[in-house]
Formats: sequence, structure tokens, C-alpha cells
Amino acid sequence: MENINICIAGLGNVGSALVQLIEKNAEFVKYKSDLKINIIGLSAKNKSKKRDFDISNYFWVDKPIRLLNIQGKKPNILVELIGYEKDISYELVKSALNQNINVVTGNKAMLAKYGNELFSIAEENKVLLLFEAAVAGGIPIIKTIKNNLFLNKINKISGILNGTTNYILTTMELEDKSFEDVLVDAKQKGFTSDHEAKLDIGGYDAAHKLTLLTSLAYGSEVDFELNEVEGIDKITIEDIKFAKQLGYKIKLISETSIIENTIYASTKPKLVSKENPIANTNGPLNAINVETDELKSLYLEGEGAGGFPTASSILSDIYEISNSTGYKSLGFTNSKLVKFKKFNSSNLESKYYLRIRAKEQPGVLSMITSYFNEANISIEKILQIPDNDSDSIPIVITTHKIISSELLSSVKKISDLDFILGYISLIPIEN
Amino acid sequence: MENINICIAGLGNVGSALVQLIEKNAEFVKYKSDLKINIIGLSAKNKSKKRDFDISNYFWVDKPIRLLNIQGKKPNILVELIGYEKDISYELVKSALNQNINVVTGNKAMLAKYGNELFSIAEENKVLLLFEAAVAGGIPIIKTIKNNLFLNKINKISGILNGTTNYILTTMELEDKSFEDVLVDAKQKGFTSDHEAKLDIGGYDAAHKLTLLTSLAYGSEVDFELNEVEGIDKITIEDIKFAKQLGYKIKLISETSIIENTIYASTKPKLVSKENPIANTNGPLNAINVETDELKSLYLEGEGAGGFPTASSILSDIYEISNSTGYKSLGFTNSKLVKFKKFNSSNLESKYYLRIRAKEQPGVLSMITSYFNEANISIEKILQIPDNDSDSIPIVITTHKIISSELLSSVKKISDLDFILGYISLIPIEN
Repeated sequence: MENINICIAGLGNVGSALVQLIEKNAEFVKYKSDLKINIIGLSAKNKSKKRDFDISNYFWVDKPIRLLNIQGKKPNILVELIGYEKDISYELVKSALNQNINVVTGNKAMLAKYGNELFSIAEENKVLLLFEAAVAGGIPIIKTIKNNLFLNKINKISGILNGTTNYILTTMELEDKSFEDVLVDAKQKGFTSDHEAKLDIGGYDAAHKLTLLTSLAYGSEVDFELNEVEGIDKITIEDIKFAKQLGYKIKLISETSIIENTIYASTKPKLVSKENPIANTNGPLNAINVETDELKSLYLEGEGAGGFPTASSILSDIYEISNSTGYKSLGFTNSKLVKFKKFNSSNLESKYYLRIRAKEQPGVLSMITSYFNEANISIEKILQIPDNDSDSIPIVITTHKIISSELLSSVKKISDLDFILGYISLIPIEN
Repeated sequence: MENINICIAGLGNVGSALVQLIEKNAEFVKYKSDLKINIIGLSAKNKSKKRDFDISNYFWVDKPIRLLNIQGKKPNILVELIGYEKDISYELVKSALNQNINVVTGNKAMLAKYGNELFSIAEENKVLLLFEAAVAGGIPIIKTIKNNLFLNKINKISGILNGTTNYILTTMELEDKSFEDVLVDAKQKGFTSDHEAKLDIGGYDAAHKLTLLTSLAYGSEVDFELNEVEGIDKITIEDIKFAKQLGYKIKLISETSIIENTIYASTKPKLVSKENPIANTNGPLNAINVETDELKSLYLEGEGAGGFPTASSILSDIYEISNSTGYKSLGFTNSKLVKFKKFNSSNLESKYYLRIRAKEQPGVLSMITSYFNEANISIEKILQIPDNDSDSIPIVITTHKIISSELLSSVKKISDLDFILGYISLIPIEN
């Protein structure tokens, strides 16, 4: 069992979720990874704010810089979740790295501005500065590019990197509301604050994230100035409707590629064809498409924000730092593999589709439905389609949720009826 | 620079693509990873078969087992791509692991059958047995679960894991053809062989892959017997049409979850709602959805088969084995980061959407279009919508591809016309 001592600076949505996640999953993490994650210090702006966990269980410091030395002890990892405020986060992260402390951060604005310097300091001091949580919340896009596709030549990365603007555009369309009205809603729901809204709507938050993806993909120095940025504030409900009429949706698209040895990194609204899965990425979701020399398209979609999804990304960085992979081809060591029993699927509940072919004669349908009634199987829809080329008819029935063994026994009875032809096709339905 | 010596057994689609990929990207791989991948031995059934690379550049052995000792030299990694044939692959992989040679394989059938034994041997001998290429071709689902989501509790994995059956189901719908006819097509196009077709269509290939995902997700011993398997051979074109009428598509869905401490691992046809992105995964694509305690949904879609996409997964395993991560937070070491120039995007070509609001007076539209004509800007569509509440009208124009600077200069001229009101909305279009 290896002890990993971490300190957390910043207890907003993500920081609070991380503390709860580590509390809740302590046993699971120990079992799966042989890691014991100890939170040895916390710091946030407002100690007395109401939180979803008991801060009295933890060592508290008012000044985040004091997290780097908790009663004479250096943490293995500093988790920086303060956000970008007057360079406090930058000074803190820099100090940690200079003291050979690994850092995990969700702070894209800081990295887009100071990344070059901070990544250099990390490497010189032989520690890691990881940032899965800084881009696309719960989608592990950083590790996908850095570890899983590292020996692919990346041609283009494009997608939706900001959930707030995507929520606004989606809601404008669904509720037929103006940009301004939806923005007020979004602020009231806590999706964005005045300060954040400026970065979100102006496209800057997405461009901060794209700056990091550009570096990962092309080995480019971290340089926010490479970005072209245009926000969504000029998009009207009229534009959204016209776009729809033309077969498109309007999305804030961030994309990066190398053209003629220069970087084209752009964040701006685009009309995206309805056939493109990115067009159907709705609400606060994020989506990213990666094109490489060998892969025409690798598409990832998931929650781009939110406390727990983002905390999951923080945890994956803690694991990357702590895990000396060893020889675990399955992630688990062999001694931890469990012999499971197979589930008895006759107890499974599902909606079902049935296709029955019957002789065309009066009363067929009512006979069939009466068998269902007897067995208490609730029918959702029936299609009875005349088939002119044949003296038999197909009957299609969809059911409400039903235990599969019960349905099977009714189906068996029906198949035995003399007006039923061939087999009854039975397929479960998934929404 | 680290030398990685590999041997490749099996030179079908994937093996051949791998050799070409390593040849083509040698400089790129050296630059990016400090690894020099040397192919020190090749073996395949038929030496004289026509191939897309020159085998005379490589050391050839007829018996794959001889790859484990090339002129007295042990490879660092054996790449096993023979496929599942009479246990040759199993014996080869076992010998390699017993001689402390790492193995990378694409052989799901072998792993589904012998995985428990082979993973144990690997761990005992302190080597890795990696298999990214065995599941979902170019989609890095193994590393996503094993590395990126390792400290998430996985609730469910579901998706389309076999490209051939998905191609058949998609083509039946699009071309209104019977299952049998499309299968003949698929064989003629080389998507599947008689032997493979049995595994594909019967659902077994997908179930082999699901067996591996079940182990990764739940730490379950590798056990094919946990699977329920049903193929697509009973799906008729009638079923596909009825499903469509009801708002669904029929897909071969593999899914694994833990229910009441038992494993429910099922591969069978299901009706999937058209709103679900999996329903829109067409042709030979694969798609996988992962649900965890912290992530409602992480969705990955990409090429599930094919030589180069799958070779890219093999390469990612070679990288995982060879890369001693060091302190490269960006994957690249800092000394390799490049200062790029920003692309001059006024040269960018795109289709565009324009919304213009004009006073309602005769000749407005022809004035506007004449400006476009003069500038050689080709118009795709025009929408002119009467607006009864106003004495102005919106005019929406979409263009064919055009250099953005040229469009901008025309738009500027048009904005200056006295009958134009407000700003002209200008948004690029992406298909």
C-alpha cells in the first residue's frame, strides 16, 4: 500500500466533489490501485461557507501557499483548483513545482498564460504538472492525445470545448429565446458567473483549452496568441432558425491544425451539418473529434463540466502520477481478479419489439392481444400492415417493460397457435 | 535514443499496415518519443504473397516460434497478429511470455479463451501482454478504461464492437437488401471471410471483445462463458423497416454490467432509439459508451477495424511498453517544443452563411447578388423571408467555398449600401 499525500487549494464545485469522491471511494481505490490517498491539507477563500462535507475532518490553512508545508510535511501532490485569480494560482503552482511537488490543476487560463514557464520548471524539477481537468471536464482528452495517440501524427482536433455556450445555443433553439434571456437563466442556474460568462461567451475559455490541445498535438510552445477567437454574443435566434432551415446547427467550434507549417487555432461560431455528430451534442456536453494520419476520426463526447466529472479527471491525474504501472496488463494485478457468476438474464426487464407473421383471417389480432392481457404484458404500440403480395400479414408489437422470462412464455404459447407462420422475431428495445 | 526491437508474426491487413507505418513514421517516432523501433524479424504463412512493402528488407523466418530468437537475439516485443488458428498463436504468445518477452496482440479469440493463463504468465515474468488492437480497432478503449478511468467505478459499458455486422445492418437499410445479399457483398469486398463471417454474424467476435472489457472494467477473471450471445442472422429487412417506422434502428449491441454481484454480459440485436448516438453509428464504425459513478456517459466512436487504424493501436501498445514516462507533462520534453507561427487565416477557404437585414424595397436582392457576382463569389442558396412585423426583411445567403478575405471585402461593400440595416452576420459552414 502506497500513501499519497495531497493538498487541495480551492473548494468550489470541483474541489468539494474531489474531497467527497476520495472519502466515498477510499476502499475501492485502495483495492484497485494499492494507493491510499490522504488529504493532508485544505485551503479555500471562505472557511465558513456551507459545504457538502465536514471540513473539521481536515487540516485547514488560510493561505494556500502554506499547503506546501503542512506541519513540516511536503505533500506528494498539490491539487490547484483556485481558478485564475490575480496570479495567486500561478505563484502557488510555481512554488510547488520549485519545491519538487507534483501539481494537478484544472486551471486552463493560468496554463494558457504561464504554461511554457510552468512546464519547464516541472521538467527541471522532475515532477509532473498534469491538467486533465482543465480541458473538457470528464472527457479524458489529454491522456488520449498524450498517451493513447502519442505516435499518431495529428492532422486536426476540433469540437465543442465550452459547455456554457453550448447550453446557451441549445436552449435558444429549444425554447425559442433570445441570447440575453438564456444568459440570465444560465447565471441563475449557476452554470456561469458574470466573470466566467465573459470568458465563456467571448470564446476565451474554449481558446484557453484549445491552446493546451495545440501544444499536446503539435509540440507547440504554449502560446495563447496563436488563437483566433470569436464569441457567440452576436448569434441571434433568427440565425439559429435560418441555420435549421438550411440543415445546420450553430455551434461554437474550436479547431486546431497545422497549415503550411503554421498553426491555425480558431474558436468561433460555425454552422455544422445536422449529419455531423457534433451538431447533436446538446446542452452542457462537450465533444471532440481527432483526425490523425491513421485515424479518419476518433470522436469523444461527454460531460464537459460539473463537479464530479471534473473531479474524476483530477483523480485520473493523481493515478497517473502515483501509479508505477508495474506489469499489470489488465490494470488489476492477477491476484485481484475475481471469479464472477453469470447473471440470470431471465429476470431482466426490458421493452421488446415483436414481429409476428399470421394468416390473414378475422380475429387474429384480438387473439394475440388476449394472450398478452392474460399474462399481464402491457402493449405500447401495434402496427398491423396489410401485405398485398401475400395471404399472410405481419403484426408488429412493442411492449412496455417486462421481465423477459414472462414474455418468452407468452410468446411460446402464441407461436403454437395454428394461424401463426414462421418464427416470432423478438428484439429488446433500448432508448 | 532507445532501441526497441520487435518481431511481427502475421502479415495480414494489420501486420502489413504496421510494417508500413513503422517505415513511414520512423523519423517522426524518433523525434517525438526518443524511440527507434527496429523490426528484427517477420513471419507469415505465405512468404511469396504480394505485399505493399519489400519483405527482402527484413529478416524472415518461416516458423513464428523462431521469432523469439533472431540470430541469438531476443526481441523486446513480439507482435502477434496471426489470428486465432489451431492454437499456434496461443503457443507462440505463451513461449514469448515465458521467455520474458513483452507481447502485443490483436487476437481477441485467443485472449477470450486463454487470457487468464496468459495474463498470469505475463505478470509472473514481469512483462506486459497488451491488446489495444483486439477491441474496437483504432478506438483506444482499452487504455481509456485501464489508465484514464481506472479509479472510476464502472457501471456499464455498451456499444457496437463488430464492424462487419454493423456494415451489414446499415447496408440492408440503405440499399433495401436482404441479409443474405449484403453478406455476399461484404465477402466480395473483403470485409469478412467465410470463417470470420461465422464469428462476426453469430456475435462471437463482439462477445470475445466484450469478455476483455468485462475483465478490465470489473476485475473479473477472463471468462467467455459469462457471455450471452445472439447473432444478427435472423434480422430481416422487414424488421429494419418496422423498427424505423417506430423510431428505432436495429444494432448488434454488446453490453456488460454488474447486477446483483453477477456479470451481465450480453451481445444481441437491439432496437436503439434514433436519438441515441449509437443508432447513428453507421457502416464499419464502432462506438462505445462508458457509464461510471462519476460520468453519466463517455462516448467514443471511430474506426473499429482496418489495417492502419488497428496498426495505430498496436503502435500505442509498443509506446506504452517502451515509454518510461519520465517527467513529460505534455508528452514532449520541453526541449522539443517548437515555437510555431500563427496561420494567416485570411487565406482560409470555407463555405459561409450570411444574414443581411435590408429595407423592404424593390431590387434589393439583385443589388446584393450583383456584388457577389462581381467578386466571383458563388452563391449556393438564398432565403428571402417576408417579415410582416417590420418594414425590413432578412436575407440569408449561403456561399460555396470562398477565400475568407475575398468574401470579407465584398461584405464590407454591401454593408455600406444605404438600404442595409445593422451588421451582416457571417458564419462559416462545416459539413
